[in-house]
Amino acid sequence: MSGVVEELRAALGEGLVVTDPEVMEGYAHDEAEWAPYEGPVAVVRPRETADVAAVVRICADRGVPVVARGAGTGLSGAANSGRGWVVVSFERMNRVLAVDPVQQSATVQPGVVNDDLRARVSQDGLWYPPDPASSPWSTIGGNVSTNAGGLCCVKYGVTRDYVLGMEVVTGTGRVVRLGKTTAKGVTGYDLAGLMVGSEGTLGLVTEVTLRLVPLRTGIEHTVVGYFDSLTDAGRAVAAVSAAGVVPSALELIDRFCLQAVDEWKNMGLSAEGEVLLLARSDLPGESGRAEAERILECFEKERAVYAVRSTDEEEAEALFAARRLAYPALERLGPLLTEDVCVPKASVPTMLEAIERIGERFRTRIGNIAHAGDGNLHPLFIVPAGDEEAKERAQRAFEEIVDEALAMGGTVTGEHGVGLLKMRGAADELGPDVVAMHRAIKGALDPKGILNPGKVFV
Amino acid sequence: MSGVVEELRAALGEGLVVTDPEVMEGYAHDEAEWAPYEGPVAVVRPRETADVAAVVRICADRGVPVVARGAGTGLSGAANSGRGWVVVSFERMNRVLAVDPVQQSATVQPGVVNDDLRARVSQDGLWYPPDPASSPWSTIGGNVSTNAGGLCCVKYGVTRDYVLGMEVVTGTGRVVRLGKTTAKGVTGYDLAGLMVGSEGTLGLVTEVTLRLVPLRTGIEHTVVGYFDSLTDAGRAVAAVSAAGVVPSALELIDRFCLQAVDEWKNMGLSAEGEVLLLARSDLPGESGRAEAERILECFEKERAVYAVRSTDEEEAEALFAARRLAYPALERLGPLLTEDVCVPKASVPTMLEAIERIGERFRTRIGNIAHAGDGNLHPLFIVPAGDEEAKERAQRAFEEIVDEALAMGGTVTGEHGVGLLKMRGAADELGPDVVAMHRAIKGALDPKGILNPGKVFV
Repeated sequence: MSGVVEELRAALGEGLVVTDPEVMEGYAHDEAEWAPYEGPVAVVRPRETADVAAVVRICADRGVPVVARGAGTGLSGAANSGRGWVVVSFERMNRVLAVDPVQQSATVQPGVVNDDLRARVSQDGLWYPPDPASSPWSTIGGNVSTNAGGLCCVKYGVTRDYVLGMEVVTGTGRVVRLGKTTAKGVTGYDLAGLMVGSEGTLGLVTEVTLRLVPLRTGIEHTVVGYFDSLTDAGRAVAAVSAAGVVPSALELIDRFCLQAVDEWKNMGLSAEGEVLLLARSDLPGESGRAEAERILECFEKERAVYAVRSTDEEEAEALFAARRLAYPALERLGPLLTEDVCVPKASVPTMLEAIERIGERFRTRIGNIAHAGDGNLHPLFIVPAGDEEAKERAQRAFEEIVDEALAMGGTVTGEHGVGLLKMRGAADELGPDVVAMHRAIKGALDPKGILNPGKVFV
Repeated sequence: MSGVVEELRAALGEGLVVTDPEVMEGYAHDEAEWAPYEGPVAVVRPRETADVAAVVRICADRGVPVVARGAGTGLSGAANSGRGWVVVSFERMNRVLAVDPVQQSATVQPGVVNDDLRARVSQDGLWYPPDPASSPWSTIGGNVSTNAGGLCCVKYGVTRDYVLGMEVVTGTGRVVRLGKTTAKGVTGYDLAGLMVGSEGTLGLVTEVTLRLVPLRTGIEHTVVGYFDSLTDAGRAVAAVSAAGVVPSALELIDRFCLQAVDEWKNMGLSAEGEVLLLARSDLPGESGRAEAERILECFEKERAVYAVRSTDEEEAEALFAARRLAYPALERLGPLLTEDVCVPKASVPTMLEAIERIGERFRTRIGNIAHAGDGNLHPLFIVPAGDEEAKERAQRAFEEIVDEALAMGGTVTGEHGVGLLKMRGAADELGPDVVAMHRAIKGALDPKGILNPGKVFV
């Protein structure tokens, strides 16, 4: 194994190759605390594409697996290392290379942090919509590899919808350009789109060209609704969709999560009811007010105990900050297991009921946050640290929720990816013929099988 | 060869298998008049997915190529038959299977005509945006296979942006479901997205689930601008994009095309100037008026000889009808060769200048229509019927325009697909490494190489 390290050092120089076990520990896994990992043989921190290509060529020659890593905020174990693997961390490739205001696009290195990109392009009056809750930390490379979603996607779509083209190092260490930089383009297969969401199993993304849209300006309307039950809140979500309204965000947070945020940040959010729905409209002018009014009507019709429309931006920021803080707030309480099922919008109330039922049956405490407008639910399983029996029950509840979602025509992962945590459910969802297609494509693009092997499917 | 026909008849019944040469001639090619084709051995008209799977299995066993066909409105020869191939025409699989107003989606068979789908979903207050100029005739299956664009895509994206999931018959005759039916989903590779735009080389699409959006209501604003030159019009297009405005359509038609429409339909459009730009804003209320005003300012700043903003829906319909009629109007004048390059938006004026220059150099009459807001240009080459020397000059001009577009960082095909006409340019655009990736993927999913072989890449 030391041969790989020496060869990497010879090719890249000492400084780019880390082998200190304590430092490497911080690079060995993502935030999926329940997913297994083992120690890498080296962590490489490339400065440029040629470094990445050199790493992959060396590893391909020796059959050593390679896993790419952004900020490590993933929630499914996709960035976890296996024993003796090489971790490629993109922390030094973090530049915004170009912003083109006429084309409304940006070209970036994979290590750019989502919020940093957002701040940079706003200087040109542009906006990059995909906004995973991890946006202050997660990188565009990681967002691309998982096809990250976020709060805006109910109206603005997910990462794939904004990827025009990319530079990729293939499994044989070739550097290729995929996709396009123009607004449209249909030359050949959509290989850039194929790379998006492939969780590092088909190539290492070394540069991305992203489509941008004009920065939103003007007043946004926020609609807040508290409900007595998950079911009522779920019905309100389905009602909004049935009314033909497409809010720019429609989030759900239950009292358990609100309390965790309150206890941490003292925001006083959990007093009003069991479940909070948080909706926004960013339509301009009178249309925004009218849309917010329709959302409010849907909330009231579905028995909101308290509902209000507001244009107070400070209050709205606080509420959405609370939504983003729900995950870290719950992490403070113990090891978290995160669900990510997505169901048809009409099934949101039924699925929320099923989650409650399953939690009771397996005596597992489940908090709920959700990109409710998409039908993308994030039940969060909290177990007391060290309680193995509780952990096992939570894992059974987790798999049961996956099965319920599939039975409703849903998917096992709306935005976090399969990684290691969702492989059983993914195999059920895809079925053997489609898994065979995955294997065939992986074999075609990564013939040595060194790119993040054993993730997503086997 | 007759063995295949007998086996198809035995499997599907007499009525579904056509072998009459005169009938087959109408199924042997698309509207790319300059692309080669040869006679198929049979045309099959399946009623259901099982029929399609049977055809593919029979053809895979015998190594007979299969080409799928919608309405045959393609412009690159992708649907053309080779000698002894089997053509699968989806004309009988033309049902809208379900419309889900809560999920805002529709599930359809591939033979549904784009405009028919549009009309059907409007009954539920929903809208399917992708609107190729062929929308009165072209089918969703064909739209999916070419990743069709249209007038709306400058704001609303292309076919791929609306495909959630699909049923596909693979190259080995297996029936698989790809993608999802939920709003989001990242389970495994985006194989549905890979199928979109693959021009029938990776599978036969037998069912599609499409994302829909709420039907637009309310007043739309139209901005009309006439210019003295293509360059001025191109500058106005770049100015609109640089102003951060995203119109819901931004089309260009030159006088040559306007005259052809006038001569056919007597619309009186060609009197005002050399080039017409046609823009729309569908933002609600005051925002729409303001956006249209900004577009108007861009037109005036870039020396429009006549420019006006209007909310007269009848007039707007007539103008956009003229845009859609430009292609068939020119077809009346002789065999048409259609370009489809897409360039960065800032390069639109330069590219339009290059097209004029190339037309003069090769003494070829070129008409121009364009989805100008996307940078997607459709120079149309008209040659006198039977003039082989003029045809050869036009073909050289065609390739020269491809090279100019590539030199500007553009793509050889914005929305029509590679088919047979753009294979040389596509090979240059993709480069040998990316073509090798295409070959590897095709080999993985179509191991017998029977799905529309020899198209897109070799």
